[in-house]
Amino acid sequence: VRPVEPGRVYLVGAGPGDPELLTLRAAAVLAAADAVFHDRLVSEAVLATARRDAERVDVGHRAGSVRRELAEVAGWMATRARRGQVVARLKGGDPFVFGRGGEEVQALAALGVPCEVVPGVSSALAAPAAAGIPVSHRGLSRSIVIATGHDRDPAGRPAWATPTEATLVVLMGSARLPALAEDLIEAGWEPDTPAAVVMAATTPRQRQVCGRLGEIAERAAGARLGPPSVLVVGEVVSLAPLLAPAVAPSLALGLAPAAASPTGVAE
Amino acid sequence: VRPVEPGRVYLVGAGPGDPELLTLRAAAVLAAADAVFHDRLVSEAVLATARRDAERVDVGHRAGSVRRELAEVAGWMATRARRGQVVARLKGGDPFVFGRGGEEVQALAALGVPCEVVPGVSSALAAPAAAGIPVSHRGLSRSIVIATGHDRDPAGRPAWATPTEATLVVLMGSARLPALAEDLIEAGWEPDTPAAVVMAATTPRQRQVCGRLGEIAERAAGARLGPPSVLVVGEVVSLAPLLAPAVAPSLALGLAPAAASPTGVAE
Repeated sequence: VRPVEPGRVYLVGAGPGDPELLTLRAAAVLAAADAVFHDRLVSEAVLATARRDAERVDVGHRAGSVRRELAEVAGWMATRARRGQVVARLKGGDPFVFGRGGEEVQALAALGVPCEVVPGVSSALAAPAAAGIPVSHRGLSRSIVIATGHDRDPAGRPAWATPTEATLVVLMGSARLPALAEDLIEAGWEPDTPAAVVMAATTPRQRQVCGRLGEIAERAAGARLGPPSVLVVGEVVSLAPLLAPAVAPSLALGLAPAAASPTGVAE
Repeated sequence: VRPVEPGRVYLVGAGPGDPELLTLRAAAVLAAADAVFHDRLVSEAVLATARRDAERVDVGHRAGSVRRELAEVAGWMATRARRGQVVARLKGGDPFVFGRGGEEVQALAALGVPCEVVPGVSSALAAPAAAGIPVSHRGLSRSIVIATGHDRDPAGRPAWATPTEATLVVLMGSARLPALAEDLIEAGWEPDTPAAVVMAATTPRQRQVCGRLGEIAERAAGARLGPPSVLVVGEVVSLAPLLAPAVAPSLALGLAPAAASPTGVAE
């Protein structure tokens, strides 16, 4: 086991929410950290695993809120690291999957602060899994595309091409879902492609709806799904009725049988 | 902490190789398992964390070797689960990311064996990170495409579309690299797109080369990179010279400065 070193900033993937999905390395860093910087995508249960006397700093990062400057946060972390503290920078999921981890490493490097990146279980992959959806499956999906719903090109459309036989996973605030679904259909995705929205995956708040792309926004609204949510589009969603019960005992913590039944797909 | 239950099969993501990148849940399952079924993508260091007296069963799954029938393996696991054993099925990376985890859950469900899926840190995301490459980065990449080099359409081409401003990660046997790079160029990727091959990421055997897509196969062959390897294509690879030293202390365990220098990109 490698030591956790003082004077260093650890950019740690906090995983999708379930504290048991933290890596051993992440748990070791949290057990040692004097200061924990986190955004709002990091679950309470994960934060609870940090040292009780550790300084906790919420640095925002919720969709729609004003984000504090990355450089400012890096400065705060650098100050503590230079005092000889162990600093943990917790990022929901994986730091390099739309977590701006690369930019934070750059900012810390510019300040001469040594850092370490600890990969985490990405919500982009674990959220579908928690709803019984394997992002790849022979015969149904040949590639996985991960994108964010906040990213649009100058024309206002999602910037990803339309792949064939792909599974599309979009990390998003649920407020964008109606426009996003429309954009995807306009970009060439069939409205009857199976789709699912998974909210707060792997936490006790997890809920999901399945259906078809053309109706998924309405279904998600009907079920009052909020952030953080992940949209999954592709034929693999049709496996959820079979696989959700199999993974349900632990992974799909909040899986209500009614919500799990993708009636729009099974019909 | 949830208990690990006898009579159950745990489909466990073993992560990219570094045992510290196992999840807490995976470690709990390995500490309890009476039988551990694994493929050759699971590192020795990870296997060493299983109970010393656990039965270990190597079920193949190396590229190019004959793969034992999934149903046969499911049968072996079912037999042990029915005897009341805790059975761990270890998959390199994440079980649902080209790990055929969905098919194994289906096979176990058909046999009436309860199972649990434990997501893992995917090599598709952690291997680039271990080489200092963030798969997403503002201004450089707007989506991440994950595919496997073994998957080709009837015409023999990779089946993924050509996305713009995307990072492409291909899990592959290194033997296919020359043909794969050619196919990608033919499919529209520019030969001078930054590219990297990362071998045995997050293990002491990790090595990588960076360059440009048009020359990456030659560079990888020159460096004698073998399986398991991951090909990364996209502008984010150009960040490796800056980020690799920052992540090097622990993540890029085998990072030799010479190998880390992507001369083909920096030139």
